[in-house]
Amino acid sequence: MNTKQSRRKFIANKVISVFYVFCMALPLFSQEHSRGKIAIPDLKGYITLKCDFHIHTVFSDGAVWPTERIDEAYYEGIDAIAITDHIETGNRYQLTNQLKVDSRNIAHDIAAAHAKNKGIILIRGGEITRDMPPGHSNAIFLSNVDELVKPDYMDAYRAAKSQNAFIIWNHPGWVCHQPDTTLWWPVHTQLLEQGMMHGIEVANGGTREYSPEAHRWCLEKKLTMIGSTDAHAPMQKQIDFASMKHRTMTLVFVRDATPEDIYDALKERRTAIYHEKYVIGEEKYLKELFENALEWKVTKGATWCSNEILITFNNKSDLTFYLKPASHDPKIVYLRNMVGLFTIEPKSEQTLKVYLLDDIKGGDVNLIVENFLVQPNTGMKYTVKIEN
Amino acid sequence: MNTKQSRRKFIANKVISVFYVFCMALPLFSQEHSRGKIAIPDLKGYITLKCDFHIHTVFSDGAVWPTERIDEAYYEGIDAIAITDHIETGNRYQLTNQLKVDSRNIAHDIAAAHAKNKGIILIRGGEITRDMPPGHSNAIFLSNVDELVKPDYMDAYRAAKSQNAFIIWNHPGWVCHQPDTTLWWPVHTQLLEQGMMHGIEVANGGTREYSPEAHRWCLEKKLTMIGSTDAHAPMQKQIDFASMKHRTMTLVFVRDATPEDIYDALKERRTAIYHEKYVIGEEKYLKELFENALEWKVTKGATWCSNEILITFNNKSDLTFYLKPASHDPKIVYLRNMVGLFTIEPKSEQTLKVYLLDDIKGGDVNLIVENFLVQPNTGMKYTVKIEN
Amino acid sequence: MNTKQSRRKFIANKVISVFYVFCMALPLFSQEHSRGKIAIPDLKGYITLKCDFHIHTVFSDGAVWPTERIDEAYYEGIDAIAITDHIETGNRYQLTNQLKVDSRNIAHDIAAAHAKNKGIILIRGGEITRDMPPGHSNAIFLSNVDELVKPDYMDAYRAAKSQNAFIIWNHPGWVCHQPDTTLWWPVHTQLLEQGMMHGIEVANGGTREYSPEAHRWCLEKKLTMIGSTDAHAPMQKQIDFASMKHRTMTLVFVRDATPEDIYDALKERRTAIYHEKYVIGEEKYLKELFENALEWKVTKGATWCSNEILITFNNKSDLTFYLKPASHDPKIVYLRNMVGLFTIEPKSEQTLKVYLLDDIKGGDVNLIVENFLVQPNTGMKYTVKIEN
Amino acid sequence: MNTKQSRRKFIANKVISVFYVFCMALPLFSQEHSRGKIAIPDLKGYITLKCDFHIHTVFSDGAVWPTERIDEAYYEGIDAIAITDHIETGNRYQLTNQLKVDSRNIAHDIAAAHAKNKGIILIRGGEITRDMPPGHSNAIFLSNVDELVKPDYMDAYRAAKSQNAFIIWNHPGWVCHQPDTTLWWPVHTQLLEQGMMHGIEVANGGTREYSPEAHRWCLEKKLTMIGSTDAHAPMQKQIDFASMKHRTMTLVFVRDATPEDIYDALKERRTAIYHEKYVIGEEKYLKELFENALEWKVTKGATWCSNEILITFNNKSDLTFYLKPASHDPKIVYLRNMVGLFTIEPKSEQTLKVYLLDDIKGGDVNLIVENFLVQPNTGMKYTVKIEN
Repeated sequence: MNTKQSRRKFIANKVISVFYVFCMALPLFSQEHSRGKIAIPDLKGYITLKCDFHIHTVFSDGAVWPTERIDEAYYEGIDAIAITDHIETGNRYQLTNQLKVDSRNIAHDIAAAHAKNKGIILIRGGEITRDMPPGHSNAIFLSNVDELVKPDYMDAYRAAKSQNAFIIWNHPGWVCHQPDTTLWWPVHTQLLEQGMMHGIEVANGGTREYSPEAHRWCLEKKLTMIGSTDAHAPMQKQIDFASMKHRTMTLVFVRDATPEDIYDALKERRTAIYHEKYVIGEEKYLKELFENALEWKVTKGATWCSNEILITFNNKSDLTFYLKPASHDPKIVYLRNMVGLFTIEPKSEQTLKVYLLDDIKGGDVNLIVENFLVQPNTGMKYTVKIEN
Repeated sequence: MNTKQSRRKFIANKVISVFYVFCMALPLFSQEHSRGKIAIPDLKGYITLKCDFHIHTVFSDGAVWPTERIDEAYYEGIDAIAITDHIETGNRYQLTNQLKVDSRNIAHDIAAAHAKNKGIILIRGGEITRDMPPGHSNAIFLSNVDELVKPDYMDAYRAAKSQNAFIIWNHPGWVCHQPDTTLWWPVHTQLLEQGMMHGIEVANGGTREYSPEAHRWCLEKKLTMIGSTDAHAPMQKQIDFASMKHRTMTLVFVRDATPEDIYDALKERRTAIYHEKYVIGEEKYLKELFENALEWKVTKGATWCSNEILITFNNKSDLTFYLKPASHDPKIVYLRNMVGLFTIEPKSEQTLKVYLLDDIKGGDVNLIVENFLVQPNTGMKYTVKIEN
Repeated sequence: MNTKQSRRKFIANKVISVFYVFCMALPLFSQEHSRGKIAIPDLKGYITLKCDFHIHTVFSDGAVWPTERIDEAYYEGIDAIAITDHIETGNRYQLTNQLKVDSRNIAHDIAAAHAKNKGIILIRGGEITRDMPPGHSNAIFLSNVDELVKPDYMDAYRAAKSQNAFIIWNHPGWVCHQPDTTLWWPVHTQLLEQGMMHGIEVANGGTREYSPEAHRWCLEKKLTMIGSTDAHAPMQKQIDFASMKHRTMTLVFVRDATPEDIYDALKERRTAIYHEKYVIGEEKYLKELFENALEWKVTKGATWCSNEILITFNNKSDLTFYLKPASHDPKIVYLRNMVGLFTIEPKSEQTLKVYLLDDIKGGDVNLIVENFLVQPNTGMKYTVKIEN
Repeated sequence: MNTKQSRRKFIANKVISVFYVFCMALPLFSQEHSRGKIAIPDLKGYITLKCDFHIHTVFSDGAVWPTERIDEAYYEGIDAIAITDHIETGNRYQLTNQLKVDSRNIAHDIAAAHAKNKGIILIRGGEITRDMPPGHSNAIFLSNVDELVKPDYMDAYRAAKSQNAFIIWNHPGWVCHQPDTTLWWPVHTQLLEQGMMHGIEVANGGTREYSPEAHRWCLEKKLTMIGSTDAHAPMQKQIDFASMKHRTMTLVFVRDATPEDIYDALKERRTAIYHEKYVIGEEKYLKELFENALEWKVTKGATWCSNEILITFNNKSDLTFYLKPASHDPKIVYLRNMVGLFTIEPKSEQTLKVYLLDDIKGGDVNLIVENFLVQPNTGMKYTVKIEN
């Protein structure tokens, strides 16, 4: 065997170790994508992490291998994810009668090294998958998912609690669970009172569901607002990134980009939801996101037809802003003859023309940010002041 | 329990059958894509099928569940696929020490019902994965992949042959197997002579490899030209469909869209390859693809500056055509002052201006179709005749 | 001088006739665009023409030569246009003190041959450009624009009437004319009663103005609804065609594509307006546009979680449809957990899921088509019936 | 008349001054585009200006008003333009028998204030438009275009020279002038020797013409290479900016962004041409553009199959780079199995894999940059060194 042949002789023909097999095939085909970036501003004292805490793999009824979920997060600019395969339902391999999984920790364990390598925070999780009530819940920050395999669902929640898990009631308004009305059941009060419900999934990307009831409950009961994909298919199959779409995610406002800080932030309800074109959350956070995403300057416009003032918004973020006028002094005229909404596209400038009548020198331009929901189905008010 | 509750009581809490689990989760999240269409013309007497005979799943080192491969084909407009997981290397679950697969037929079997439902032709296959020589080969149209599990690779090929498999030498120029020169080894002569090599993968989408040597061998040794993806990752991750990219595929010219006719067509070398912007194949097929994809009409142009003739090409296909002038009568002037290639984009019209000097009335517009390779790295000549 | 030289000797050096000059330069650079098509359905007995009756050229304060307006219409799929340069204001050449235009008919006359050649219907028009009241009006279907040059604006309107012009009040809510409130002035009553106002420009693309007052006046006073661009700049500069935007236009429902039929249709108020994503018009027309643009079929969905019914809309048009639920029987559930609108994109399918509770067999799916305005700022109701 | 009425009374009904007319109409409709940017790097000691010295308006046979040319340049990121209307042919208004232009300076004069306002450098020019020979030439940096109106073309050139104009022979290979062969005529020698030819238009965007002969003459005769649009239609009509296309332009390497420095740079041949995907110019400039546009780093790749080296190119510019291998040491393997070219898209990263055989530690990766033309139709060689 000559040199050339021996150089190629890196795999023995007969003894094929698993290690070699992986080396042989993966580096060849791995698609190298660069790290994505979703431009959503930080808040004062906090970094804004983009997180998705509800994801499936082939280890329950998802369609992709766990490492793929890391690549997706890396490519899209997601900072932290949890794989939350269904706990009770075993996995799709059981269908085949040929495979068995001894541990519900396996998907996380397979993905962990790749996550570390790619700089993605991976949080161990599982989905407690029961009929309504109580429906489905995600437990994240678990140490051992297997301990949640219990016949009685309350035992499963207790096991999660004993691991200090953060527990999220998933898609409360899902049509298969609550077809006509999204109800809060007695068991949810019980879970809440016993410290076994910390957040609710107000928006779910899989069903494209936004639940105004869940939104209200979060505000009333001091629960954390969560948005997630509930992804089963490959992410690129579901989301048209070329059209600037994004996955449903939870924005978590942390001091540092660590799992511990994410846990603390979730417990302290420092989150907002980015779902389709909407940002959903407490007004204090949304107001700061608005102000940090947009810069604007007020200049004088043309003088020949009226006292025209130009408010030029510069959107430095990937968010879109949909504005309409709120009630205001009739001497300040803006957006009067317009159908649809005044839209500030991502990474662009847009100028709002304001007319000051009867020689007034300034005043309040009251706006409603239609897609910044601070109450169920209700946009945030914001006033831009014009001074003389 | 009231009516509303009982309506929701479709899953028992404790006894969870696999059947119910699947019902619960899959219909909710299944992304409904419509059937794709790749516009490549049929030939006289033959339908042009778009096929991909080299695909991996989680049952070797791929990243997706087998049914996903059907959805991808459906969405993209692919007519037939073969799942060809590595035979010798077992599968990635072995890594976990928790899973085992008893049969190499499993990926195919899982996907079969979904394929039927979606109208995708699914061909049973496997990849004989050995060091060079002989390197990797796909055996397709197998009846039982497990019989190819043999210590000696010749036994594996013989087992494939005994099942009347169609056998393809994969990516002969792969850098890990043949880094500097793409060689034909004695064993390949042996395989060919013993009826255990029927085609060569001239183009491989995973490595973006086109092998001019493989192209030449196919022409010289009467082997079938194959192009395939060798997909491991989700297809949408690898291919930018929004930018009108497509997977590497084999065009198979069949009488009817049946597995049997695909088999016959492969054996009779009725194929071409569609790889990136290139179509690779025998001139008789490429000429007919060119003529069936393009319509053109010759009209008179402006008369004020020269005898101008307009050839207006109407491309009804999704193929792109890159043309440059071949040697021609100097009295026929075209594409003289141009850098780059005369490009006819998919589904569009493009006009070529020709100037007839010295009162000649017509003649031959000789062109080279740069991206229709009829010989290794060599474009097809085509003449458009202008008559007086 | 040899043959080669003489062949090139098509222009005499010294005597340069205007005819030769044009031949020399224009055919060289004319950009050949293919004919555009805007897919908006016809109505029963009527062809839907896409028209723009408010356009400027360099012969008032526009920025392009008249023939360019024909090319734009051809490229975009517009069927008929009127060039309506400002009558009273002369043209921008006067600025130079070097040019003079003797006739306001010149822009039309220059464009006429090109319009005929390209198959665009060109209607002679002019804009009576006065202060408010009465503001600006377009007179179209004129025979001689020059006769409208009158010191007293009522004389200008009378001259238009004597030519049987169709007269449109332009942009009544324009901020420079009516900054705070869009008023109907006594003179407008006078114009209406004397047959010198036939339509109102409800939507104006230049200012992106939609006037709900104008919309209401058209409905109340039986005036024709007009939408137009008021284009001054090149169209491609103003409208982002690559993002599937379109010019503001009047849809005119004619028996035949002739100027005469357009005139009759305008007089009989057979129009609707296509402005940004909105269609504005009488309900009888918009209902038929909706039904002819969309096909839908009702099928059974999954049975495992509820009685699911699928309404699959197939949008064959270039219109977008934004739907939201109207009040309906609570036993029919649809679009319950959704933020934003149910959107049917152009040339695509979209499926609406409906759940029938308590074993009902069918009923009314009441929808509001948010962007089909049948009253000022008010969407059209539409019911899709589900039968058992 | 009440306040509201009087506020609107900004235009007198009867006396219409030109000043008011413009105020009324233009500010309303002017489309506000933000300043464009074409990312092409500066050179050491020089700023790279993007210039277009061949543009027409309605004051010869163009289709747009002069100010529009300024808006186009502003929007696209062009730094300097010259309006070069045909001198001898008068203008298209003569066709009408109603208009006359007394001065060929008018287009420039109309555009000048707008250019200043927008920060675009506007250079006075005119096109000497004659039969071949000598064909068409642009004279730029003129002080008075009218002095070039002469029966004898040599007198026109002399008048240009007496104004210290920079004179460019336009589109020498234009099919109407030189259909079969692009010849250098005796008169061109005469013009060159008498200091009346300083550059040649090697690339013309209107005809999409690149002239290899002109390229060669520039190199041999020390003439400045010029690329320009020869625009007649609105720029957005001709160039598909949404597909990242750009106008043909001259890159001028200046010390400061002033007209004087542009003049000096042109005289000193500090230019390159950016035409379609090609950059054309002297090697010393193209090499520096290459190095300043691209950063690359060399890292070690996978070790399991060969000694793999990764060259990761980071393209910070809007240029595209098309690379192919030049002859090289056979122990350094790269781009071996590839059809087409190795492409580095604008503003993106691309990794080139190199394999070092036989334990060599480094060497030269010789490349040809296909679209950087340093000789007629000949790409630039570039070597990336890999060190051990």
